[in-house]
Amino acid sequence: MTLKFEVLDQSRNSAARRGRITLDRGQFETPVFMPVGTQATVKTMTPEELKACGAGIILANTYHLYLRPGEDLIARAGGIHHFMNWDRPLLTDSGGFQVFSLADLNEISEEGVRFQSHLDGSRHFITPEKSMQIQKKLGSDIVMAFDECAPYPADKEYAKEALDRTLHWAHRCQQEMENSPQNLFGIVQGGTFADLRRLSARETVKFDFPGYAIGGLSVGEKNELMYEMLEVTVPELPRDKPRYLMGVGTPQDLIAGVRRGIDMFDCVMPTRIARHGSIYTREGRLTIRNASYREDFSPPDPDCSCYVCRNYSRAYLRHLLKRREILGIRLTTYHNIYFFLRLMTNLRRAIARQELDSFADEFLERYRDDAVAG
Amino acid sequence: MTLKFEVLDQSRNSAARRGRITLDRGQFETPVFMPVGTQATVKTMTPEELKACGAGIILANTYHLYLRPGEDLIARAGGIHHFMNWDRPLLTDSGGFQVFSLADLNEISEEGVRFQSHLDGSRHFITPEKSMQIQKKLGSDIVMAFDECAPYPADKEYAKEALDRTLHWAHRCQQEMENSPQNLFGIVQGGTFADLRRLSARETVKFDFPGYAIGGLSVGEKNELMYEMLEVTVPELPRDKPRYLMGVGTPQDLIAGVRRGIDMFDCVMPTRIARHGSIYTREGRLTIRNASYREDFSPPDPDCSCYVCRNYSRAYLRHLLKRREILGIRLTTYHNIYFFLRLMTNLRRAIARQELDSFADEFLERYRDDAVAG
Repeated sequence: MTLKFEVLDQSRNSAARRGRITLDRGQFETPVFMPVGTQATVKTMTPEELKACGAGIILANTYHLYLRPGEDLIARAGGIHHFMNWDRPLLTDSGGFQVFSLADLNEISEEGVRFQSHLDGSRHFITPEKSMQIQKKLGSDIVMAFDECAPYPADKEYAKEALDRTLHWAHRCQQEMENSPQNLFGIVQGGTFADLRRLSARETVKFDFPGYAIGGLSVGEKNELMYEMLEVTVPELPRDKPRYLMGVGTPQDLIAGVRRGIDMFDCVMPTRIARHGSIYTREGRLTIRNASYREDFSPPDPDCSCYVCRNYSRAYLRHLLKRREILGIRLTTYHNIYFFLRLMTNLRRAIARQELDSFADEFLERYRDDAVAG
Repeated sequence: MTLKFEVLDQSRNSAARRGRITLDRGQFETPVFMPVGTQATVKTMTPEELKACGAGIILANTYHLYLRPGEDLIARAGGIHHFMNWDRPLLTDSGGFQVFSLADLNEISEEGVRFQSHLDGSRHFITPEKSMQIQKKLGSDIVMAFDECAPYPADKEYAKEALDRTLHWAHRCQQEMENSPQNLFGIVQGGTFADLRRLSARETVKFDFPGYAIGGLSVGEKNELMYEMLEVTVPELPRDKPRYLMGVGTPQDLIAGVRRGIDMFDCVMPTRIARHGSIYTREGRLTIRNASYREDFSPPDPDCSCYVCRNYSRAYLRHLLKRREILGIRLTTYHNIYFFLRLMTNLRRAIARQELDSFADEFLERYRDDAVAG
């Protein structure tokens, strides 16, 4: 199950490229956005709907699945693909980020991380080896190394410590995954320090992983700082391996990442804001629950041709959301996932046509950062 | 938009019959079960999923839609079909039952019913004319007369009063619906008194409605009493018009109703228990949330070939329900609706083959009333 990555088009005036990743369970083009299926379900959606939206790969969270229902149960179910009825590629994170952000952290040591579950306070100890063992049982196609994601802001000394530990752990992850058919990606850390990012990238690349992620960004720092970190990190990563910017992001960040040579993204935003009654449109985010849409019988996003925008009005979506009807957040979620995946399709096409700048400029000019007034 | 009803097969040893109802928006066979779309959505489901389950007609609740989003908004949306993207027949109730059961009832008079909304306490006055006007704006294919559903138990005097009022109101409803292309069904009342039921049926039939409903049953009385009421009422109803038993019921009640000559049913049970984590199976109700299904990788209902039972395990459903994932109640709802609609298909086939008794006996022997232990 070796990952194959091909660069199909290289942008002439940016680091952007269009590529193709092939795995045993399927092939998809990059830059790609991976919908997040935290608990072995992309919230509200069936696998068939994800496919109808164009999803070629999704992500699941090791931390959540380890706690509930447990990796052993999923292994007995025949692996996560069989468990959740998803037959295309799937990436699992290492659990590290959630341990650091969700759980009650008790102790970080060279050996691993001691924490208490955010669900019931139960005590757990995760090591790099343990994270690999869990991900083996889950049976994902792409496995992420167990890393330490330093909180933002972190001072340089701590960022360096976390970076070193991540490198030591990368080695142990690689050892543990020896002979596994799963594809282990390394993770670059280094906080918001350009020299640490460069160092982390150079050292991580030495492991010759089939892909590299950039972790610890989009955790509170300013966008410009994140972009700067990408600009110093990407050139250190091999051209012939996919680059994955973890947990990113907004449409603007996706475009910024693509321009800086990123191939893979994931983010909970499209599904999360859908549950809060907001949708992405060509003009920006729109809070469809607002009273101003009460009698707005136009499509949710007039520029969209997804199932939702072809069949339902803003007024109907608002009615469903106000009445707390589940179909409401099903429809907003579906549209938002479609919106993100279509944006990636458009970005890939623009790269292939050497039109990325004009596409991006046009998109960003029309797309407003804040929710559309309403 | 005149309703056409044909009896295709008459059971030789019971009142059961297989029929076909034709309306401008489509045709469906009877006995039929109508999934309930209270707020212009059958909870959790898209119209396409309802069709995939075999739904030929659904129901929506006038009381809820009158309160939110309001019949005027739905009229401006082009009617309820366009509003909710359902292009097959749809029946609306009169709002009466919900006014009597959900709202704060202030006063029942010959003129109408004064009540306060269960949502915000706002004051409303619904008359038979008003109920018809609302249903006209909703644009349903079948409209129900505004009736008074006496609570159970009601003494005979009150039951007679409610019956009389329902007849007076039926007249006013018919006047108000004159020249409307919608099909107005009359409603038989009479509590649990055989002579009142007979009287109500005879008087209601005089209006020559295109269909007749039996109301005020399955409101707390014993099953046997309900069956007795059907047995005295149905013979009073014309053979060439559809008979609709409102708000019923369990699989056992559906079979009992079909055997007594009922053609149409509706009930919130399959969707409601789905949201509480229970599914219908060939063996009875199964509380899939129970711990015993934690590692049960068999299909939810091994005898079912619906989308859910073909693709997911009890263990996965349990995981989703325990984690409060929306996909969980989507899948249990889908299966339950499919289960009810398939039962009706099987009943129709059994009637056509003159095998209703053997089918019903076999079904009821295997189907246990209580939830399957687990």
